[in-house]
Amino acid sequence: MLFYPVGVASATEGTKASRSKGERTRAAILGRAVDLASVEGLERLTIGRLAADLGMSKSGLFAHFGSKLDLQLATVAAAAERFVAMVIAPSLDAPDGAPRLRAMAEHYFDYIATFEGGCFWGSTASEYDDRPGPVRDAIAASMEAWIVELVRQSEAAGVTDPDRYAFELYAVVMGANSRYRLSGDRRVFDLARAALARLEAELAS
Amino acid sequence: MLFYPVGVASATEGTKASRSKGERTRAAILGRAVDLASVEGLERLTIGRLAADLGMSKSGLFAHFGSKLDLQLATVAAAAERFVAMVIAPSLDAPDGAPRLRAMAEHYFDYIATFEGGCFWGSTASEYDDRPGPVRDAIAASMEAWIVELVRQSEAAGVTDPDRYAFELYAVVMGANSRYRLSGDRRVFDLARAALARLEAELAS
Repeated sequence: MLFYPVGVASATEGTKASRSKGERTRAAILGRAVDLASVEGLERLTIGRLAADLGMSKSGLFAHFGSKLDLQLATVAAAAERFVAMVIAPSLDAPDGAPRLRAMAEHYFDYIATFEGGCFWGSTASEYDDRPGPVRDAIAASMEAWIVELVRQSEAAGVTDPDRYAFELYAVVMGANSRYRLSGDRRVFDLARAALARLEAELAS
Repeated sequence: MLFYPVGVASATEGTKASRSKGERTRAAILGRAVDLASVEGLERLTIGRLAADLGMSKSGLFAHFGSKLDLQLATVAAAAERFVAMVIAPSLDAPDGAPRLRAMAEHYFDYIATFEGGCFWGSTASEYDDRPGPVRDAIAASMEAWIVELVRQSEAAGVTDPDRYAFELYAVVMGANSRYRLSGDRRVFDLARAALARLEAELAS
């Protein structure tokens, strides 16, 4: 079952050492684009806006991305790459099922602290849910891949209704992100951990 | 304890019959503004954009709202009024505690179907979490009022950790909204209802 978000396999093929200077520049630009989109939204992420933020020329950016749509799709792919690198990959050592789910949730809480504007997916999913097109499709495919992975691990944990269980896991971690972003109160992560502990206790009963 | 979102008390003082024509016009304009904001975002809700959508003159709208900020704040208040009218008020017949929580969740699912762009709060919370100012403050106050009410009813239901319980309720209903908006799959509401049933079973144990 494919769970890596769209575009990630190719983006992660080269290791840091083997990437060319052009690839490294592109990755650095996209890292900034992901953060900017998490703060200002993906729709406002134009080549001009990003060039101004980076202190680069627009023509320099056009060499990497031919259009606003190219840039937006590359940003979604880079956000998926960050998600895989920070949430999925470091959890792979944990056995399938409950330990993997616990590891992914903890890494998710670390991961959202790396964004200036909160979880990229939390910001862009609500921004694009009413904007049909390739950007929305790319965001939806990545979110779907995350849900599929949560369902797969819920099955491995022996849950009888993995779709419901995965939905709850998704709701708790995304809910923690949105509550934290608006309230600024870090205690919401304690509430989310208590909710996850309660979900895990369900496995034992 | 105050749980009605900011601005709602005054907005609901007049009944439909006693409202003047000007008040009814203003309410109709704001109803459209809430929907437009749920689709396009609140930041794009300018007097010019709303006037074009309604086929009204900009000067006609300026008679109701002196500035974009006035319009945005009035739209947040109107969204809070819709939330109270559709989620809180119809649940007041249910006794405090578990029955009230169940009623509010069901009315919430009906209520989000009334928006063109999904729950106003789901859309605007992530849009404004990084934009300090009076609009963000008004959104945060309304969200906080909703959480406070969920905590109050969780206490009435006899939960030992009402903050955690209220957070889970919030996460499940908001998670259902965001998953539905992006996937278009109505089965997410079945998953959310199963999650709420599981939360309610916790009360009996």
